[in-house]
Amino acid sequence: MPDYKAPLRDMRFLFDEVFDFPATYTAIGANDASPDMVGAILEEGAKFCEQVLAPLNRSGDEEGAQWHDGVVTTPKGFKEAFAQYVEGGWNGLAADPAYGGQGLPHSLGLVIAEMVGTANTSWGMYPGLTHGAMSAIHAHGSAEQKDTYLTKLTEGRWTGTMCLTEPHCGTDLGIIKTRAVPQADGSYAVSGTKIFISAGEHDMSENIIHLVLAKLPDAPAGTKGISLFIVPKFNVNADGEPAERNGVSCGSIEHKMGIKASATCVMNFDSAKGFLIGEANKGLNCMFTMMNHARLGTGMQGLCNGEASYQGAVRYANDRLQMRALTGPKAPDKPADPIIVHPDVRRMLLTMKAFNEGNRALAYFTAQLLDLLHSPDAEQVAEAEGLLAFLTPICKAFMTDTGLEVTSLGMQVFGGHGYIREWGMEQLMRDCRIAPIYEGTNGIQALDLLGRKVLGSQGKALRSFTKIVHKFCQAQAEHPQLKAQVAELARLNQQWGELTTRIGMAAMKNPDEVGAASVDYLMYSGYVTLGYFWLRMATVAQAKLEAGSAEQAFYQAKLATAEFYFKRLLPRAGAHLAAADAGSEVLMRLSAEHFTL
Amino acid sequence: MPDYKAPLRDMRFLFDEVFDFPATYTAIGANDASPDMVGAILEEGAKFCEQVLAPLNRSGDEEGAQWHDGVVTTPKGFKEAFAQYVEGGWNGLAADPAYGGQGLPHSLGLVIAEMVGTANTSWGMYPGLTHGAMSAIHAHGSAEQKDTYLTKLTEGRWTGTMCLTEPHCGTDLGIIKTRAVPQADGSYAVSGTKIFISAGEHDMSENIIHLVLAKLPDAPAGTKGISLFIVPKFNVNADGEPAERNGVSCGSIEHKMGIKASATCVMNFDSAKGFLIGEANKGLNCMFTMMNHARLGTGMQGLCNGEASYQGAVRYANDRLQMRALTGPKAPDKPADPIIVHPDVRRMLLTMKAFNEGNRALAYFTAQLLDLLHSPDAEQVAEAEGLLAFLTPICKAFMTDTGLEVTSLGMQVFGGHGYIREWGMEQLMRDCRIAPIYEGTNGIQALDLLGRKVLGSQGKALRSFTKIVHKFCQAQAEHPQLKAQVAELARLNQQWGELTTRIGMAAMKNPDEVGAASVDYLMYSGYVTLGYFWLRMATVAQAKLEAGSAEQAFYQAKLATAEFYFKRLLPRAGAHLAAADAGSEVLMRLSAEHFTL
Repeated sequence: MPDYKAPLRDMRFLFDEVFDFPATYTAIGANDASPDMVGAILEEGAKFCEQVLAPLNRSGDEEGAQWHDGVVTTPKGFKEAFAQYVEGGWNGLAADPAYGGQGLPHSLGLVIAEMVGTANTSWGMYPGLTHGAMSAIHAHGSAEQKDTYLTKLTEGRWTGTMCLTEPHCGTDLGIIKTRAVPQADGSYAVSGTKIFISAGEHDMSENIIHLVLAKLPDAPAGTKGISLFIVPKFNVNADGEPAERNGVSCGSIEHKMGIKASATCVMNFDSAKGFLIGEANKGLNCMFTMMNHARLGTGMQGLCNGEASYQGAVRYANDRLQMRALTGPKAPDKPADPIIVHPDVRRMLLTMKAFNEGNRALAYFTAQLLDLLHSPDAEQVAEAEGLLAFLTPICKAFMTDTGLEVTSLGMQVFGGHGYIREWGMEQLMRDCRIAPIYEGTNGIQALDLLGRKVLGSQGKALRSFTKIVHKFCQAQAEHPQLKAQVAELARLNQQWGELTTRIGMAAMKNPDEVGAASVDYLMYSGYVTLGYFWLRMATVAQAKLEAGSAEQAFYQAKLATAEFYFKRLLPRAGAHLAAADAGSEVLMRLSAEHFTL
Repeated sequence: MPDYKAPLRDMRFLFDEVFDFPATYTAIGANDASPDMVGAILEEGAKFCEQVLAPLNRSGDEEGAQWHDGVVTTPKGFKEAFAQYVEGGWNGLAADPAYGGQGLPHSLGLVIAEMVGTANTSWGMYPGLTHGAMSAIHAHGSAEQKDTYLTKLTEGRWTGTMCLTEPHCGTDLGIIKTRAVPQADGSYAVSGTKIFISAGEHDMSENIIHLVLAKLPDAPAGTKGISLFIVPKFNVNADGEPAERNGVSCGSIEHKMGIKASATCVMNFDSAKGFLIGEANKGLNCMFTMMNHARLGTGMQGLCNGEASYQGAVRYANDRLQMRALTGPKAPDKPADPIIVHPDVRRMLLTMKAFNEGNRALAYFTAQLLDLLHSPDAEQVAEAEGLLAFLTPICKAFMTDTGLEVTSLGMQVFGGHGYIREWGMEQLMRDCRIAPIYEGTNGIQALDLLGRKVLGSQGKALRSFTKIVHKFCQAQAEHPQLKAQVAELARLNQQWGELTTRIGMAAMKNPDEVGAASVDYLMYSGYVTLGYFWLRMATVAQAKLEAGSAEQAFYQAKLATAEFYFKRLLPRAGAHLAAADAGSEVLMRLSAEHFTL
């Protein structure tokens, strides 16, 4: 892993200058999150990630999680780092104070998660899954369940998992086979096999609390017959402490392309004692309530690996001497010029920078919406809910697809040295490749966006966002330096609606039109969305420069990167538009056999 | 590794129906390569690759090449497979009969190499490097050198390497430090360190013949002072047999993202006895003569991994049951439909199919040009040389970049199962990732195409190809089924020239304009080139259907894939055009420090 330096300046730019987080924090009554406090938290978080987690990244990959006879051992230092993380208060940062948390805004938790995931993606999976379990229990658990589990989870004494996937189903949870049979004492005997369970077994905590999707004996078929159960690794006794082992065990762990230090477990439930959480047959709904949070977190992985790759690539491009600049030597005292003088190396670096910083803006804007769900203003909550539903699949899919491109470009800057383990660049790409797959594949995200969210709301979800873009474009239409880009954004924004109408019309006749267009529709959406955020950043940067800011270089770089995005990346929207418009006929015409000829 | 089945039908389609290889073979006097013989060779080659090499692919990855105290051991079965390969006559297929080869056309050798590389990329590196060394010795060696080395290399008793890269230089060979000091006996003492040497040390042959770039003591600075030397692992005695060990040893092997069974060696030369090959200070020219061949071979790796990924993905998409088709159940007797019913899965499969088959057409057309270098018709040779120079960087870069996309899409079709080792899909992506890097990074290919080939010839190299496309479009302008696509190709073909003129004009004022545009220029070129080949294939398929061919499904699939390519992939050319037109200013404006802010 290349050394990690948290991009605190860029984070503060978004927090304070672009999105005005202080105002949001005031609005939701998060009074502890004063600007000074936020600054201190970010700096302390950065230190922990840079100094504790980053140094464990490569050794974690080399060592990997190890399974032996049902016991999983995490790489050297992982357990100790988790203890430090908990000790530092990071695990409970955004957790409910009623259960030992600090009650700080979720957006702040996500920024810390960004740093954690950039420093050490595999390690970040353990607290990440715990936070997911905590959210589910907090939202749907009974008072007793909250008392039993939440404080221990916040204290990091216990950790959590989410057990959804089975060998024969991932996306199609309606056909899960895990069964939960009611017992005389009100508990359930849960039996079945779950696969791909991150943090399903490990040595970092005293107990592991599994949240398990299963079917009751009389459950209706399909997704309407799925219930959610709490199944602890060790049953909890009357004192609230772990007692005897429950009927759940780890059968093996997967050997994967990357995130090797994250234990991906096969979990066998054999009449394990479980407890229904939320209503019977409403398990999928319970899962969905925290989906926005988890999907934004997964989208962030694209940014995390992309940021780490960028930092490595910039450092290498300044150090590596190779060839002379075509415009004449730039380092005549050296045997060759640093490769950052070459335009194509800069093209790669600027592509990385433009996606990373654009994706960060998208992620933080979305995280701010998560905070606004806690606003006392019902209208504000409703607006945030709508935008969140719309932007979440874009965050997840666009940020991980472009994140993978960015991570791969970083390797390319290194040439052959990028392909060997030594420099850490190839690990980033192996780690990043899972992000477009898990937490709902990017294809599923695209169906969620176009089918469920946009067409499912007759376009209302789209308009909630295009309206914002439209207003921005109107307000900035005469911007002295940026009006050409504003006009281009306005054009794409209008096309977005027109494209949606065309697909919607076609889909009324043929439902396959949705799936035929969805991924390109999502990518089109992502490019336009990032165009909006880049222009917002550019207008702020331009204003700061004109106001005589002392940080000329920072704001000039923002303006140049915005220009680069508009000139060299945003034109890809046109290709996605054409593909999304191409219709389903050419896809569906072939028989399955045609594909194998 | 998913089971491999060589796509013989598609290969024969290109050989016999699209490109008329029989006529070329007749023209170059390759009378042994009759259509029947070619058919038999392809079938036997397929059997060997499917039955011997493919089963060693995954075990080779798991085991990897192992280094111990200077000795490199290849994975179990590799050595025996090489013996079988040699025994079957595959190693000498396209080699000179004067030295034990069969003298068959190079194109046939490349098709066999495609099958080898698809079945087992790592294994294919060993004979691949040997063939490179054989070409260099054949083209530039003295009669005595040919006698000493070529027959042994053809017989597979010895193998070869190419030693170019050093720790501080890869692209920039002008600054190599390896030195060759003349000795009294006419040999040279070669000293220095070479890295990233594929097949530098292993247990598959009795001797290893290194071709080493080094500098003579009085050599001019830069690339004009590089000479090429033959340095055998074991010195060769008067009988032509290996004698005492030479001063060359393997210091270590690299731990890489993929192609783990291919030994990537650090080679230490310590006053090793070497022999000048070709003229002093002309070593780089010697290397360049075989560059076209090697770069086409590397481009092919994109196709190889892409083809393997496609075969795995199609099989999985037919087997994996998940969700129902939106148009109603297609397999009502099963718990869910096979995922190939879903439009987005088909989009992924068709993207893979369109790139693979289009890239195969590009590669075979280019391989045919390699054959035509042996034509007795001087004009034909000159034309082939020009086209080859132009198409080779496109083959190398476009085929590996799109090959990586294809390979990644295959993993995506598998969802989470694509990310674990079990199914072999993640290995393909790890193996494929090197291809855009080695044999000259894709950025270097783009500079070669735009700077050296196209602008360096004042556009002549481009016109040699656009003229062919133009003539085709004119001839097919009224094609009843395909005229819309023909018109689109003609439009892009014309834009290609206009874009080139614009960049050329700008580059006269500022040489950085070349590097700023080059990669997007190459990608634009690749998309248009594949558009041409897809239309050629489509016109043949349409004619066959109209002639009442019994293979309706095969030709219908070709037509549908061509249409898919034009509707959904070719529009990307527009995005590359815009980026190539964007100019260097936005790239060069930032100082190196701006990138790290």
